Amino acid sequence: MSKQRVLTGITTTGTPHLGNYVGAIRPAIAASREATNETFYFLADYHALIKCQDPAAVHQSGMEIAATWLALGLDINNATFYRQSDIREIPELTWILNCVCAKGLMNRAHAYKASVDANIADGEDADKAITMGLFSYPVLMAADILMFGANKVPVGKDQIQHVEMARDIAQRFNHLFCKKEPLLTLPDYQVDENVAVLQGLDGRKMSKSYGNTIPLFLPEKQLQKQINKIVTNLQEPGEPKDPDTSTVFQIYQAFANAEQTAEMRQAYADGIGWGDAKKRLFALINAEVGEARERYNDLLARPDDIEDMLQQGATKARAISQPLLEQVRRAVGIYGFR
Amino acid sequence: MSKQRVLTGITTTGTPHLGNYVGAIRPAIAASREATNETFYFLADYHALIKCQDPAAVHQSGMEIAATWLALGLDINNATFYRQSDIREIPELTWILNCVCAKGLMNRAHAYKASVDANIADGEDADKAITMGLFSYPVLMAADILMFGANKVPVGKDQIQHVEMARDIAQRFNHLFCKKEPLLTLPDYQVDENVAVLQGLDGRKMSKSYGNTIPLFLPEKQLQKQINKIVTNLQEPGEPKDPDTSTVFQIYQAFANAEQTAEMRQAYADGIGWGDAKKRLFALINAEVGEARERYNDLLARPDDIEDMLQQGATKARAISQPLLEQVRRAVGIYGFR
Repeated sequence: MSKQRVLTGITTTGTPHLGNYVGAIRPAIAASREATNETFYFLADYHALIKCQDPAAVHQSGMEIAATWLALGLDINNATFYRQSDIREIPELTWILNCVCAKGLMNRAHAYKASVDANIADGEDADKAITMGLFSYPVLMAADILMFGANKVPVGKDQIQHVEMARDIAQRFNHLFCKKEPLLTLPDYQVDENVAVLQGLDGRKMSKSYGNTIPLFLPEKQLQKQINKIVTNLQEPGEPKDPDTSTVFQIYQAFANAEQTAEMRQAYADGIGWGDAKKRLFALINAEVGEARERYNDLLARPDDIEDMLQQGATKARAISQPLLEQVRRAVGIYGFR
Repeated sequence: MSKQRVLTGITTTGTPHLGNYVGAIRPAIAASREATNETFYFLADYHALIKCQDPAAVHQSGMEIAATWLALGLDINNATFYRQSDIREIPELTWILNCVCAKGLMNRAHAYKASVDANIADGEDADKAITMGLFSYPVLMAADILMFGANKVPVGKDQIQHVEMARDIAQRFNHLFCKKEPLLTLPDYQVDENVAVLQGLDGRKMSKSYGNTIPLFLPEKQLQKQINKIVTNLQEPGEPKDPDTSTVFQIYQAFANAEQTAEMRQAYADGIGWGDAKKRLFALINAEVGEARERYNDLLARPDDIEDMLQQGATKARAISQPLLEQVRRAVGIYGFR
C-alpha cells in the first residue's frame, strides 16, 4: 500500500503556548519523524488574514511559528513544510472549487452559524462583522487539503465538519468533471481521542481567549514566574493533596513519563508543598523544551535560514500543486489554444 | 492628466451575435483604437465557470470570442488583451479581498437576490442551486478591476452595482491597510445611455436566453437564411410600411449611416416588400462583417497565433498585476522573512 498523505495547517496568529504544544505540535512533530506517512505542514497565512488585520502581527507570528516547529525538530526532509501563500495554486483552486460548491453548504458551517447566532442574540444584523473570508473559509480549507491529495487530516472535533465539506466538494468536482478517473482525492478526518487538553493558569482549558496561557518558549525566569501563577488551593505543606483536582499535577502529567507521574502522585499523598510541586513542574518542562528554546532563539536571529527552509518546502509542495492544478484547469476547460 | 484606464471583461460563454456586436463589441473596439485611454480587455474564463460546467464549451467559446475580437480589429498594441486565467494574481487578490469584504454586501447583490427571489417564488430553499461562485462573483469582479487600477469600467445598467461594490471593497482595503498612500484605485462605472439594444428575430431584445439571435459570423448563406426568419407583419409589397415598428428596420439602422437610414425610411414609405428589405439588410450587414468573417475563420484555423497574441497580452498584464499584488501582500503582512 502506498504511503498515506497527512496534512496539517497551522494558522499564523498568536504565539504558541504549552497547550498548543502538548495538544497539537508535539504529536505532529512525532508524526513528521515517522517514515510510514507522507506528511505536509503549512503556515496558514491566508487563513490568518481572516482574523488578523495587523500586518506586522501576521508577519511576526508566521516567523515565530515557523521557528517553533523547526526548533522542536520538525523533520523537513521527511515532511513537506511550506507557507500557504507561497503556493499560488491554492487561491486559484479555491476559485474553481467555489464554482462547484453549493452556498447552502457554507450556510451550515458551525463557525459561521455560531457567529450568526451571537449576532442575533445581541439584536444585531445576522451577518454583522462577518466577512466573505470567514464565510467562505471552508472552501479555502478544501483547496488546502485537495491541492495535495491528502488522505488524512488530523483535526480537533470542531473541525470535523470542514473536512467533511472538503470531501463533499471533491466528490462534486469529480462527479462533474472526471467521473472515470477522479482527480481529487477524498480526504478523511482523523480525531485523536487521547489528545491531551492542557489546563491553563486558572484551571480552565489553556486558551489564548481565556488569557490563561503559558507561552512555550518563555525565558527560564519568566517561565518559572508564570508557573508560580498557577492557581492552587490553600492547603499547607504536609497536608496530603488530591492530584486529580490539581492543575499543577495535570500539566506535570502531560510532560512526565509513567514513573515520574507515579512519583509525583506519591509526593501529593505525602503532602508536597505547592511551591515545591511548581518547582518540579518547572524543572520538568524546562528539561523538555530548554534546548528547543535555544534553537528557537537562534533561529529567530537567522530569518534567512527560516526562509530558505520554507522555500525548500515550497519547491517540494509546488512539485505536487502545479501539475494537479494543470489537470484541474484542463478538466474544467481552462487551457491554452495551442 | 495621465491616461484613464478602462477595463472590459468578456465572459467566455456562447457565440457572439449581432446584438453583442452592436451593443458591446463594436463600441469597445472603436475605443481600443483611440490613444486617449489605456484600455484592458480580457476573456473572463474564471467567470464562465460559474455558469458553464461543459469544459469543451468553455474552451471553444474562449477561442471563438478571442478570434471575434481580433478579427474585428481590436488593436492589441494599443490595448492590453489577455485571458483572465493567465493572470494568476487575480484569484489570489480575490482571496485577500474576501477578507475585507462584508458578507452583507454580497447578500445585497441584485443577481444573487434575483436568484433567491425566484427560488422562494418556486417554494424552494432560498439558496437552491446557488453556488459559492455565483454568490461571491462580485469579489472576483472587484479583483479583476482593482488588479489593473482601472478608473473606468463600461457596463450595462445591471452591472453598475458590481462596480460600486468593487469601489467599496477598495475603500475598505485602503482604509485598513494603507491610509496614507492608497494602493487600490477607486473605479467608476461608465454607462453609455446611447448603447444600441438590438431586436432579435421575434422583435424582443436579441438575447441568447430568448433563442432569437443572429450569430455574428454565420456563413453568408446561413446569415441570409437567418435574416429571412425575422418576423414581419403581413403587409404586401406596394403597401407603405411603418419603419418604427419594424425589426428589419431597427436592425438595419444599427448598421447604416444617416443617409442609408433615410433612404430605407423612404423605401418603407414607398412600400418596399419584406423580401427586398431583408435582402438590403443582409447586404448591409454582410458588407460590414464580411471581411472580418474571413479573418475570423482564418484565425480559428491558426489557434497558435491566437495563443501567441494572448500570451503577449498576458505579459503586458502581468507587468502590472505582479508588482501590485506584491504591494498588496506586503500591506496585509504576507511576505518573506528575509
